[in-house]
Amino acid sequence: MKKIKWAVIGAGNIAHQFVSELIKLPNCSVVGVASRTKASAGAFAEKFNITDVYESYEMLVNHCDVDIVYIASPHQLHFEQALSCLNAGKAVLCEKPMTLNVGQSMQLIQLAEQKNLFLMEAMITPLLPAIKGLQAYIEQGKLGEVKSIQASMGFQAELDINSRIFNPKLAGGALLDVGIYPLTLAQLLMKKMPSSMVSQVEKAQTGVDQQSIVSLKYESEQGADVLVQCQSSVVNFLPCCATIYGDKLIAQLADFSWSGRQIVFTNHQGERVEVLDYASDENAYALEAIHVNHCLQNGLIESPLIPHQQTLAVLHIMDSLRQQWGLVYPDE
Amino acid sequence: MKKIKWAVIGAGNIAHQFVSELIKLPNCSVVGVASRTKASAGAFAEKFNITDVYESYEMLVNHCDVDIVYIASPHQLHFEQALSCLNAGKAVLCEKPMTLNVGQSMQLIQLAEQKNLFLMEAMITPLLPAIKGLQAYIEQGKLGEVKSIQASMGFQAELDINSRIFNPKLAGGALLDVGIYPLTLAQLLMKKMPSSMVSQVEKAQTGVDQQSIVSLKYESEQGADVLVQCQSSVVNFLPCCATIYGDKLIAQLADFSWSGRQIVFTNHQGERVEVLDYASDENAYALEAIHVNHCLQNGLIESPLIPHQQTLAVLHIMDSLRQQWGLVYPDE
Repeated sequence: MKKIKWAVIGAGNIAHQFVSELIKLPNCSVVGVASRTKASAGAFAEKFNITDVYESYEMLVNHCDVDIVYIASPHQLHFEQALSCLNAGKAVLCEKPMTLNVGQSMQLIQLAEQKNLFLMEAMITPLLPAIKGLQAYIEQGKLGEVKSIQASMGFQAELDINSRIFNPKLAGGALLDVGIYPLTLAQLLMKKMPSSMVSQVEKAQTGVDQQSIVSLKYESEQGADVLVQCQSSVVNFLPCCATIYGDKLIAQLADFSWSGRQIVFTNHQGERVEVLDYASDENAYALEAIHVNHCLQNGLIESPLIPHQQTLAVLHIMDSLRQQWGLVYPDE
Repeated sequence: MKKIKWAVIGAGNIAHQFVSELIKLPNCSVVGVASRTKASAGAFAEKFNITDVYESYEMLVNHCDVDIVYIASPHQLHFEQALSCLNAGKAVLCEKPMTLNVGQSMQLIQLAEQKNLFLMEAMITPLLPAIKGLQAYIEQGKLGEVKSIQASMGFQAELDINSRIFNPKLAGGALLDVGIYPLTLAQLLMKKMPSSMVSQVEKAQTGVDQQSIVSLKYESEQGADVLVQCQSSVVNFLPCCATIYGDKLIAQLADFSWSGRQIVFTNHQGERVEVLDYASDENAYALEAIHVNHCLQNGLIESPLIPHQQTLAVLHIMDSLRQQWGLVYPDE
C-alpha cells in the first residue's frame, strides 16, 4: 500500500483532534502544517512531530510535497485554499462547510475532476455506523412509513462580534457552524431534495443568523410527504438529537453529528422496543482519517460515503435559506 | 351560593369525562342532555342521573331551564349551537375550538357581552397548575431570556374519510383537533401575537391537514426574538411535550395539554437542576368544572384564566395557517 503524505492548513481545535487520530494510523504520515501565525504552526508541528512548518498556506501549497491537504481554517478561507491546493495537484479534505455556497463548491468539484484529484468535505455524520444502521432500518421499513423528522443542534456562545461565531467576515452564524448537521442528516435519510422549505430566523446584531428553525417538505411519488424540522442556535443550548417518526416506530439518535452510537426505538405508547448499540473503538475523526486514506490508496477521487452530490445538496439548501434571510457573506 | 344548573349538548367521550367530574361538585347540578340520537342521550342521562333528555339541541335550548350549557358536539356545530344558547339567555362553555374561525367566535363574544352572559372555550391547558407555575418561572426570569419553544402533539388515527378526524364536513384535520394545544401553549407563554408564521403541511386525501409543522416568530421591543415550533399530526404519534429553551435553563413539561403535573429543569450541560411537581387531587376536567362554577357564582361573564382574547388569538393563528394551506371548511 502506498503511504499517504498529509499536510494541514489551520492549527485550531478541530485540526488538533483530527491529526491526533491521523498520526496513529499506519500507511500515512503528516509532514507539513501552515497556520496564520508561525507560532501556532510551530507548536502544532512540535506536538505532532511534523517536520515542515509554513507561515502561509501559499508556501505550504507551493513547497510541501504531499498527496493530500487537510483544510481546517475558518470557513471563508476554504474556497481559495482548496482551489490553490487542487491547482497545485494536491488532493483535499476540507472541513465543513466545504465552501460558503454551492457555486464555489461546484467550481472545486469541477477542478478536482479535471485534475483527477480526490476532494471531500470533512462531514463526519455519514461515516457514523449508527447513521448507516438508521438508514438501513428505514430502508427495510422497520419504522413503517416515515412521517416526520426533528433534528436540532445548538450551543451558547458568548457574544463576541469579532469571533468566528458572530463575525460575518468569518462567515459566522448558526447555520454554517451547527445547522449544517441537522440538514445533512435530513438529506442522508431522505436521499432527495426537499420540494419546499420555510424558516424563521433571529439575526445577531452583526447580521448573521444566531438561531433559526427550518421546516422542509419532502414529497414522494406515492403522495406521502415527510415533514422535517431542523433547528440550530449559537445563543442557547439545543440537544444534538434526531427523532424519526415512522407510523410504526420512532427512532431516536442522540449526538448524531459525530459521536452518536445508540439508536433507541420506541412504539406509539412511548415504550422502548429496541436499543441498537454501535460501539466502536474508533472515534469519529479516526473513522474519517481511515476512510480518506482508504479512498486515496484505492485511487478514488470521490468518497462513496460523502459524495459531492450530498455536499452540494446541503449547500444548496443553506444558500436558499440565507437568501430567504438576506444573509450574504463578504467573501462570496 | 347559587346552585348552578347545567345542560349538556353532545354525549360523546369528552362529555362523559367532563360530566363525570361535574356531578361530583356541590352547588351545581346537571339537569338536561341533548344528542343527535335519543338513544345516546338516554344512556348518558341514565348514567349521570339526568332528568331531562332531548333529541335535538334546539329542544334543549328552548325548553330546558338551566344557567349554562356545555357544548361537546363536533366542531362544526359549535357556532350555531352556542349562538342559539346565548340567544336563549343561557351561558355557554364550549369545547375547543370554540368555533371554526375567529369571525364566528367574535360574533359569539359580542352576543354574550350584549346579553351579559358567561362564555368560555373549554380549553383546559391554561387552568393547569403546572402551566401557571411555568408562566411564573418565566416571568421571574429563572430560565433567563427565552430563546425558543418546541411543542408537539399527535396521535395515529385509522384512515376513515367519514370520521371527525378526516372528514372536512366535520371540520377534520390535526390543527383544530390537537394542533390547537401547542399553539395555545405558545400564546400562554408569549402573551402577544406572533409577528410572522410559516408552515409545512401534509394533507389527507380528504383535503384536511393530517400533519403540519408551524414556525412562529415573536418579536420583543428589546430586539430579542423567540422562535416557536408547533407540530401536530393525526397520522403518527408525537409526544405531547413542550420544551422551553432559556439562555440559563431549559424547562420541559410533558402532557401539557391537560394532565401535565411536572416541570423538569435542566441546564446547558443536560443535567437536571430542579423538578417541580404540581400534584393535584383534581383531574383537569374537575379543575375546569370548578372554575366555571366559580365564574358563574361570582357573576363573571368572562374567565380571567381563559379570556376571549386568548381564544381569539389562537383562532386567528389557525385561520392564517388554514389560509396558507387553502383549507376552508364547508360550514364557514
